[in-house]
Amino acid sequence: MNKVVVGIDIGGTITKIGLIDKGGNCISKTSFRTKENSDFNDFIKNIYNSIIKLNNKNFDILSIGIGAPNANSLKGTIETPANLNWKGKLEIVKKLGNFFDVKIKLSNDANCAAMGEMLYGNAKSFDDFIVITLGTGLGSGIVSNGKLIQGYDGFAGELGHFSIKEDGRLTGLGIKGGLESYVSATGLKRTIMFMLAKYTDNSIFRKVPFNELHGEDITKAAEKNDPIAVKAYEYTGKILGKSLANFVSFSQPEAIILTGGLANSGKWILKPTIFHFEKNLLPFYKNKVKILESGLEEKDAAILGAAALAWK
Amino acid sequence: MNKVVVGIDIGGTITKIGLIDKGGNCISKTSFRTKENSDFNDFIKNIYNSIIKLNNKNFDILSIGIGAPNANSLKGTIETPANLNWKGKLEIVKKLGNFFDVKIKLSNDANCAAMGEMLYGNAKSFDDFIVITLGTGLGSGIVSNGKLIQGYDGFAGELGHFSIKEDGRLTGLGIKGGLESYVSATGLKRTIMFMLAKYTDNSIFRKVPFNELHGEDITKAAEKNDPIAVKAYEYTGKILGKSLANFVSFSQPEAIILTGGLANSGKWILKPTIFHFEKNLLPFYKNKVKILESGLEEKDAAILGAAALAWK
Repeated sequence: MNKVVVGIDIGGTITKIGLIDKGGNCISKTSFRTKENSDFNDFIKNIYNSIIKLNNKNFDILSIGIGAPNANSLKGTIETPANLNWKGKLEIVKKLGNFFDVKIKLSNDANCAAMGEMLYGNAKSFDDFIVITLGTGLGSGIVSNGKLIQGYDGFAGELGHFSIKEDGRLTGLGIKGGLESYVSATGLKRTIMFMLAKYTDNSIFRKVPFNELHGEDITKAAEKNDPIAVKAYEYTGKILGKSLANFVSFSQPEAIILTGGLANSGKWILKPTIFHFEKNLLPFYKNKVKILESGLEEKDAAILGAAALAWK
Repeated sequence: MNKVVVGIDIGGTITKIGLIDKGGNCISKTSFRTKENSDFNDFIKNIYNSIIKLNNKNFDILSIGIGAPNANSLKGTIETPANLNWKGKLEIVKKLGNFFDVKIKLSNDANCAAMGEMLYGNAKSFDDFIVITLGTGLGSGIVSNGKLIQGYDGFAGELGHFSIKEDGRLTGLGIKGGLESYVSATGLKRTIMFMLAKYTDNSIFRKVPFNELHGEDITKAAEKNDPIAVKAYEYTGKILGKSLANFVSFSQPEAIILTGGLANSGKWILKPTIFHFEKNLLPFYKNKVKILESGLEEKDAAILGAAALAWK
């Protein structure tokens, strides 16, 4: 009988579930709106029913991996998530464990992304690497000596809140100059506003309110040489490149992998990032650390990441 | 027959060698001036002869641990050390291996300090911690998942060169705003100059040239309420505290241990450091991470650190 693991990605909007075989193939998958269930117990049942339906060929389920925001991997809980409906400590591993007699592992999205790159993506040959997820915020999964750095109680790798500027922009957690307030989809939008304030160039964005700004539109504008869009990407890449150069002095990774929406803008973010990264590296790190894009297919990346957690 | 390891600490001024038993007792020790031998091969022979003399009871030597500046732990080399007489790549592990048929391990001083705290000092019960050595510069040894983070080719943990201020003070490696240019014995001296420039207070240091400033004198002046000395410690502790709070978001250690000359100034550095550390921690890290002093006796700390490397 085929052996599979279940990968579950819980996002603020969509919860995705897939059965994954050892080769990293997504055999079947489904999804539902995370906010469909106002009660957390109903949400758990919804996950259970989805898995039973997906597994109509009765594969042998070896284990379950869950990626979620604010996940405490050591305790198996989701704690006071800002973007989910439910409050307090959500004992997801314990509750799902009432339905399945297999090992269930939980980690945050960025840690799952790191596991996914290690098992199926661009980090297969690396023992030391960092994955940076550039979405609404900035997440990070750090692997050293071949193992995920989880920290004392499961909350390591919060580089989005790393303060890079004294009296800089505020993050949602009240950190001044937190990296994700500059480098993320939201950070890029804030930078468009900053550039509109700082320069007098004409720009398509002088007609667009903040709430209607979208990352893809900024990339499109840059492609058309909109000076504000071009400057915003240069500024974002400079901050990201300098910050990554700093992070190298912590764990000296062999590679840093950039994933997520903002990373998909390709050269617009990569070119200035790599330039300022190399420029700011310590002499004995220069030309040794690769900046890579994700090796996972975007549509299944989140499920594969959670599944990688289950295989490990 | 008693089993021992050899701990060797190579400093810019003194090379210390000791025989250490499993319990962390220094059975016998010796030292000589590092610059006594202008030829590196003579230096190796000097180490060999010292060990033979030390081991006059013919203990069984299990392994040798070496702490040195600019050490590449993976390659067993000391590379372009700024404070030693010899240039280029020094193959110390290979050369000493010609004299001893035992495992020889090499690491930098701060990594040795971390191993020493784990085996004999204040980190015995920790799987995740950071040791910060505050000497002429600032070094760091980072342990995660119970293992030293060495990085891709052995140069992880260079937090002294972490840039904390745009266009800040230059470090010896040309990094702008590198942490050790603020937080170290040398950094504290530079801060005294900065405070003499910034404020008009009377101070004993208005009569002392930079080159005659010593860390202990700054502590003594602070004890006598010298306003420039007090301000300098407050400034140094604020920068260290904020930086350590930032580092927690990388590996979430259970404790950060401060060692070395500047750490010996006790409350003058610890009080502002702990205050600004807690103040700047992310909400979910607050009150979870201890700031500790070293648990090793200072006179043997460096040898014990190197020996810990050998036992591991």
